[in-house]
Amino acid sequence: MSSPRYRRAAVVGVGLLGGSVAAALRERGLAERVVGVVRTAERARQTEACGLVDEATERFAAGVADADLIVVATPVQRIAAQAIAAAAHAAPAALVTDVGSTKASIVAAAEAGWPTTDGAPAFVGAHPLAGDHRSGPEAARADLLDGATVVVTPTAHTPSEAVERCEALWQALSATVVRLTPDRHDELLALSSHVPHVAASAVAATTPPEALALAATGWADTTRVAAGGAELWRQILLDNPRPVAAGLRRLAEELGAYADALDAADADTLERLLQLGKDRRDALGS
Amino acid sequence: MSSPRYRRAAVVGVGLLGGSVAAALRERGLAERVVGVVRTAERARQTEACGLVDEATERFAAGVADADLIVVATPVQRIAAQAIAAAAHAAPAALVTDVGSTKASIVAAAEAGWPTTDGAPAFVGAHPLAGDHRSGPEAARADLLDGATVVVTPTAHTPSEAVERCEALWQALSATVVRLTPDRHDELLALSSHVPHVAASAVAATTPPEALALAATGWADTTRVAAGGAELWRQILLDNPRPVAAGLRRLAEELGAYADALDAADADTLERLLQLGKDRRDALGS
Repeated sequence: MSSPRYRRAAVVGVGLLGGSVAAALRERGLAERVVGVVRTAERARQTEACGLVDEATERFAAGVADADLIVVATPVQRIAAQAIAAAAHAAPAALVTDVGSTKASIVAAAEAGWPTTDGAPAFVGAHPLAGDHRSGPEAARADLLDGATVVVTPTAHTPSEAVERCEALWQALSATVVRLTPDRHDELLALSSHVPHVAASAVAATTPPEALALAATGWADTTRVAAGGAELWRQILLDNPRPVAAGLRRLAEELGAYADALDAADADTLERLLQLGKDRRDALGS
Repeated sequence: MSSPRYRRAAVVGVGLLGGSVAAALRERGLAERVVGVVRTAERARQTEACGLVDEATERFAAGVADADLIVVATPVQRIAAQAIAAAAHAAPAALVTDVGSTKASIVAAAEAGWPTTDGAPAFVGAHPLAGDHRSGPEAARADLLDGATVVVTPTAHTPSEAVERCEALWQALSATVVRLTPDRHDELLALSSHVPHVAASAVAATTPPEALALAATGWADTTRVAAGGAELWRQILLDNPRPVAAGLRRLAEELGAYADALDAADADTLERLLQLGKDRRDALGS
């Protein structure tokens, strides 16, 4: 499949992910013009100064007007409404996609409000599994998606032609595409991302300052993602509450099993539990 | 205080930490001769080939004989017995120290069996907070302790002159020395190291293979230390069972608080919990 080529790409929300998508679209010449849509005039000036986009604007309708590609990269609770609003101004048959860390509620809300007129744009949900504990356009970089996995989450209502265009877009940014239903995405991401984030946060929160003075690289690695924005993560977790809560309770039980083995001085069980964790960790590599 | 200068330093157990101490002693010229004491003749040949020591031997008594510095760097359950055995062969007034990740049981056992003859060596427990998820002499390096914190754990029975010599030794390796009682060390390390290790292991173990395929840098960071040896960590945890079990139960409760907030869609509580974790994490730096 040849690389998709867009005339005007609008990226709504130019933070770490939006900024990286914008920079990659420009660097690879995949769009003739890349417009960043941000919240304020001041932010628009800063975004242009970062060199991630051709132009930036705080005027939403003007920014997305006539775009044939729109990537919504705002916090998860705003994505569906902004995708729908963008669809009203986009070029005919435009592709609208997103980068939200949750998919079921976003895709359901976007589909529920999507225009049904002839030539309306198509929405295909997506989630690039790329990130950094830093955030904001300062941390954005054109190669953030290079080699990353992007989960694309069409539904029975998504035109297959749009799914293919969306997958070709992410592949053109050197990502590996995996196709899942929105619900399955959320179940799996609860375990691969959302529960680990809470675990990191809880380990950090339960380390008293006097013990923090004795923290070394192990503590630093285990808690690194807890530096992510609390408001951003509150939204992600609240958008995927049942799978995350179930995963957290399962994790708490597992911690209880280690504690029970310690209380019983049960070396065999303890080593078996540790070996299970090691085997799963070793399966990923460094 | 001037740098300590040893005639013959014996390092018992030449893995990541022992090998790094040996290499640093040689590189800084702190000992005229550095001898590695290992388990088998084959391991002795491999250790000499690594270039970490001047000579390596599998003969324990010959290796530690007449040493004026002995650093015991074997797994925690063997340290006390080997320190006592080494004391019988060491030079008069030698310094014996260790690198064990737990201190209360090691120091108590070493003191209980320590020789009381005139001119007997002195034992001062120590724990360098330096590590790596890799292990073995291949991962050892002379700068591993550079800038690290080393906790030194004297008791009321430790001669103050020996404590000073021990602290000067670690300072000469560019470490920062913190003095704590063995019990206080174990309480704090349970929270800064042992509980985070179990958390990493439990997150890894509760991630099913199908979710592992969607793991990104966040999962990799959070679970990194779980790649550590299961037998090694089983020993560390079982040597510090009460503080670790208490910390794990506290962590499980904290995870339950996040899960409860999710069930109740309680955004304020959830964000407060996440902010607590972020503040504690930010206090450390990257």
